[in-house]
Amino acid sequence: MKIMSINAGSSSLKFSLFDMEHSICIASGLFERVTLPNSFYTIKYHGENIKEEIEMKDHATAVQILLDRLLSRNIIQSLDEIEGIGHRLAHGFDKYKHSVLITEEVMKDLEHYIPLAPLHLPAHILGIRSMQKVLPNIPMVGVFDTAFHQTMEETKFIYPVPYEWYTKYGVRKFGFHGTSHRYISKQIPRLLGKDEYKAIICHLGNGGSLSLVQNGKSIDTTMGFTPTVGIMMGTRSGDIDPFIVPYIMEKTGKSHDDVFNDLNKNSGFLGLSGRSSDFRDIYAGVEANDERCILAFHKYVDTVVKYIAEYYVEASGVDAIIFTAGLGEKAAVAREAIIEKLACLDIYIDKAANNVIGEEICISSSESKVSIYVVPTNEELMIAEDTLEIIGE
Amino acid sequence: MKIMSINAGSSSLKFSLFDMEHSICIASGLFERVTLPNSFYTIKYHGENIKEEIEMKDHATAVQILLDRLLSRNIIQSLDEIEGIGHRLAHGFDKYKHSVLITEEVMKDLEHYIPLAPLHLPAHILGIRSMQKVLPNIPMVGVFDTAFHQTMEETKFIYPVPYEWYTKYGVRKFGFHGTSHRYISKQIPRLLGKDEYKAIICHLGNGGSLSLVQNGKSIDTTMGFTPTVGIMMGTRSGDIDPFIVPYIMEKTGKSHDDVFNDLNKNSGFLGLSGRSSDFRDIYAGVEANDERCILAFHKYVDTVVKYIAEYYVEASGVDAIIFTAGLGEKAAVAREAIIEKLACLDIYIDKAANNVIGEEICISSSESKVSIYVVPTNEELMIAEDTLEIIGE
Repeated sequence: MKIMSINAGSSSLKFSLFDMEHSICIASGLFERVTLPNSFYTIKYHGENIKEEIEMKDHATAVQILLDRLLSRNIIQSLDEIEGIGHRLAHGFDKYKHSVLITEEVMKDLEHYIPLAPLHLPAHILGIRSMQKVLPNIPMVGVFDTAFHQTMEETKFIYPVPYEWYTKYGVRKFGFHGTSHRYISKQIPRLLGKDEYKAIICHLGNGGSLSLVQNGKSIDTTMGFTPTVGIMMGTRSGDIDPFIVPYIMEKTGKSHDDVFNDLNKNSGFLGLSGRSSDFRDIYAGVEANDERCILAFHKYVDTVVKYIAEYYVEASGVDAIIFTAGLGEKAAVAREAIIEKLACLDIYIDKAANNVIGEEICISSSESKVSIYVVPTNEELMIAEDTLEIIGE
Repeated sequence: MKIMSINAGSSSLKFSLFDMEHSICIASGLFERVTLPNSFYTIKYHGENIKEEIEMKDHATAVQILLDRLLSRNIIQSLDEIEGIGHRLAHGFDKYKHSVLITEEVMKDLEHYIPLAPLHLPAHILGIRSMQKVLPNIPMVGVFDTAFHQTMEETKFIYPVPYEWYTKYGVRKFGFHGTSHRYISKQIPRLLGKDEYKAIICHLGNGGSLSLVQNGKSIDTTMGFTPTVGIMMGTRSGDIDPFIVPYIMEKTGKSHDDVFNDLNKNSGFLGLSGRSSDFRDIYAGVEANDERCILAFHKYVDTVVKYIAEYYVEASGVDAIIFTAGLGEKAAVAREAIIEKLACLDIYIDKAANNVIGEEICISSSESKVSIYVVPTNEELMIAEDTLEIIGE
């Protein structure tokens, strides 16, 4: 049985096709610059990288080309083989606590939530509509980035602002990256050999968030009303004083939207270093003694450590800390710098283990009170598994 | 020798008159509704409370009345007895790392810093000018709320935003309540019986901030670019997602200024409870099982605990935690709720000691790895001591 997972952006379409019997990704790919000049796609299949430049005037064209290539390359023999499609959805408000079959009611809700995720939801809606047009009879499932964190208690999700901002307008902490945090949380019982656990999951990518998870349930997370806050990120600021916004508007003459755009696109590693949003470039700068890269590196470590400390105490101690996503999986130097600041909690790294590159590794030393792991995330598989579960119902 | 400390607000003037030989406050008082109808003052002297309604059309009039009453009530025999006046100043940017003699250069700088503290600095400037007019020959000293925290390292004071916001416009964490944090930090060697220490100071009042202090130096603090962030407060939100601001503007049609005003005046305890900004009212609500008061209470405890956890790890453990200011000194239930969440750090309360009402008490149990104290703050004395030191130079 084959399931496809889809992540539609405003000018992109990412797909993964899974063989669900073996939880294996058969093919995956990315369609880029959709609706723009010089659009192209890349498909990975059987160790081969297929790349083609081709005009894609809209998302429906991209979908049409995707399905056509799956057939012409014999990746599938017939479209009927695809039994379900799971869509990554950036926001499900506090209504969607689980993945759901996409109905017209869901579509209406997504339209309604656009002000909460103006950059993502219009593209997701477009992605679903394009898929529905070409594959009207295949069931589609929505998998929400926010769903996993809807188990947070009110004390955790509420902001200390006028209460009616919550009751009337829905201002609260939603949390994001839920599909990744959920995927990782499902691996923890196997890693620890027990079902009851408390863990801190550090999803450190270009975006990044931490979650405190107990027995598979999200207790708290660093992203908030939007995905711009929490830890420092590649181009996002993470937590800042909101009064900086009007001050910068006044000083620079920039518009409100421009300053918020700066917090999303020109902050974080990029903003502090003035060089790059990519941790690899930042660390190269650190090694070359670049002051601003050193500052960016330490600030990043600081913001992650701060939340680990917070969650450790919030949970009265944890059993495990898990690093995942691009930076979390690959940047051993960042993990080391983070964990070395946790010695006062009796949390210690095994430096040799930390430098091994592998699928899944334990990097805590034998004296560490808390087990530390690196575990690759797999949001696409999680989306496909949810889809299978829901269409099988 | 007598020194006066002054805190001038937009329609108020607070004073304390100290006998510096004995570090004793001889008289203190508050002039309220200055420039407004129904203005009045209260002066405390020798256990007596003097109150009088009297028209005060401007700050200079208030100063004139103050000095007149000090003489007519025989609190002083001659204005010459006042040898110096210390002014509390809300902001000294990153230039003023210590208290200074107020010169015209300082006055020019204060004018220049108004955009950083628009509610406070104009009043402070007015207060100084009014005093100078009536007492042109008495030296005046400026004591900055921000000065104590200027020892923070760049990693601590920088925000992960475009770096030129710092270099060009001065966007950074300043920290506030510095005079209180400094006063408390000076008491710690005496309390611990050693000069080398690491401590977390919890200044919990209607406004509130925590600081991490090492050997008398501020390492980090919770307030930031402005005094609205950090822990939740009486009417201020503390940390929030800045993207809430444009969202609420769009949803309510409120102006930018109105929403920021809500974050300062209608948030915190008041915003969550819908009832009061005063902790005593909130706790009465908790005892009466009021859901919103219970939420406000827990959220408050949460935001304080989160920063204690952060600073504990940041410092690799601390020797002491000190509670001070109105709520910190008086709200035993809040201290208990906060400390009970720190058991995983081997920090324990002595509940009996915590309920003793006294000047200065140790409230940690004998098993606690960290000593916990309640110490009354005295910003006015600190201002007077700085003034004495500087005019004595």
